[in-house]
Amino acid sequence: MMKPIIRPRTDPEETRSRILEVAENFFRSIGYQKTSVADIAAELGMSPANIYRFFPSKGAINECICGRIVEEVAEIAFAIARTKAPASEKLTRLLTAIHQHNKATLIKEKRTHDMVAAAMQENWSIIKAHIERMTTIMEGIIREGVEAGEFDVDDPAMSARCVKTAFVPFLHPLLIEHCIQHGEDTEEGLREQLRFILKGLGKQD
Amino acid sequence: MMKPIIRPRTDPEETRSRILEVAENFFRSIGYQKTSVADIAAELGMSPANIYRFFPSKGAINECICGRIVEEVAEIAFAIARTKAPASEKLTRLLTAIHQHNKATLIKEKRTHDMVAAAMQENWSIIKAHIERMTTIMEGIIREGVEAGEFDVDDPAMSARCVKTAFVPFLHPLLIEHCIQHGEDTEEGLREQLRFILKGLGKQD
Repeated sequence: MMKPIIRPRTDPEETRSRILEVAENFFRSIGYQKTSVADIAAELGMSPANIYRFFPSKGAINECICGRIVEEVAEIAFAIARTKAPASEKLTRLLTAIHQHNKATLIKEKRTHDMVAAAMQENWSIIKAHIERMTTIMEGIIREGVEAGEFDVDDPAMSARCVKTAFVPFLHPLLIEHCIQHGEDTEEGLREQLRFILKGLGKQD
Repeated sequence: MMKPIIRPRTDPEETRSRILEVAENFFRSIGYQKTSVADIAAELGMSPANIYRFFPSKGAINECICGRIVEEVAEIAFAIARTKAPASEKLTRLLTAIHQHNKATLIKEKRTHDMVAAAMQENWSIIKAHIERMTTIMEGIIREGVEAGEFDVDDPAMSARCVKTAFVPFLHPLLIEHCIQHGEDTEEGLREQLRFILKGLGKQD
């Protein structure tokens, strides 16, 4: 008869998710910059060395948490892309929704905004993957618009990149923060920019 | 006979320009962040209090220096706007030139880049005025294009704002820095974006 396998006292996946949960609470209460790995370890009653067995750095913990945050943003985009509506309307709603989501995060959840801003500095790969996914969702909408004769573009993938670039000032957390700090209203500029973008996609007025 | 007026030992305008000159040398050699008003005062053999008679802060000194730096950028734009060429060509050359100028400043004159980045934080009014002036130059080019039947837009001022917004990722010092840090090539995206912008102005292929 084989010896029974001794179960470890705690499952590594469970430890990992407890570290993420405690870290996220710290980041949201005292802020990402002010939280140390030692704080997270102390709260969990473990050594910092044990945390480092699961995550190489505080930035790596933030990367996982931000992965979930950007997932929520992608969900908003997917939900709009799946609706039945003309492509120009979907694209307008998608861009407006993401702008409003990012702006609301900055105003109502400054800590989350700071975590994403830190990830843009320290974990660019996860943010880059998110931007690419969002651009792919827009590409799909642009393709629908071309098929319906609503848009006139040769290369929907390239057009989606251009739309994303043309809308950066309304999407980039630091640029939105800058606008708000200087009391600039983004709403009028947003409507103008959306019209300009649709014209760039060959939509007739 | 009137008593002769006693000339002050140094003219205030001369002192002001010597402060700016010494400060600019410091900003360009050891960097804006590391330079203190005390450093500038010591170099000039005067007290910090005397500097503050001319400039309320280090930021105010930087504001004057950056005013001259952005003036050079505006000169590049004016020179292109004055040439005889189709509007779409002028606009393409103007946007490309400013992008390349800002990118070269970042790569070859990192200290100047840092001074402008500091002004964007601390002296937004001077940067805002610069952006408005650049947008006005573009508006003039767009008007020429409309008159020549090259562009099809109803409101050249609004279109100029949209063009500027659509090109922010290629103009904003921090976004250019971010691209370069992550080894992203801006040249291919630049060409795509310029074509998208011209289409947004109603230019036919």
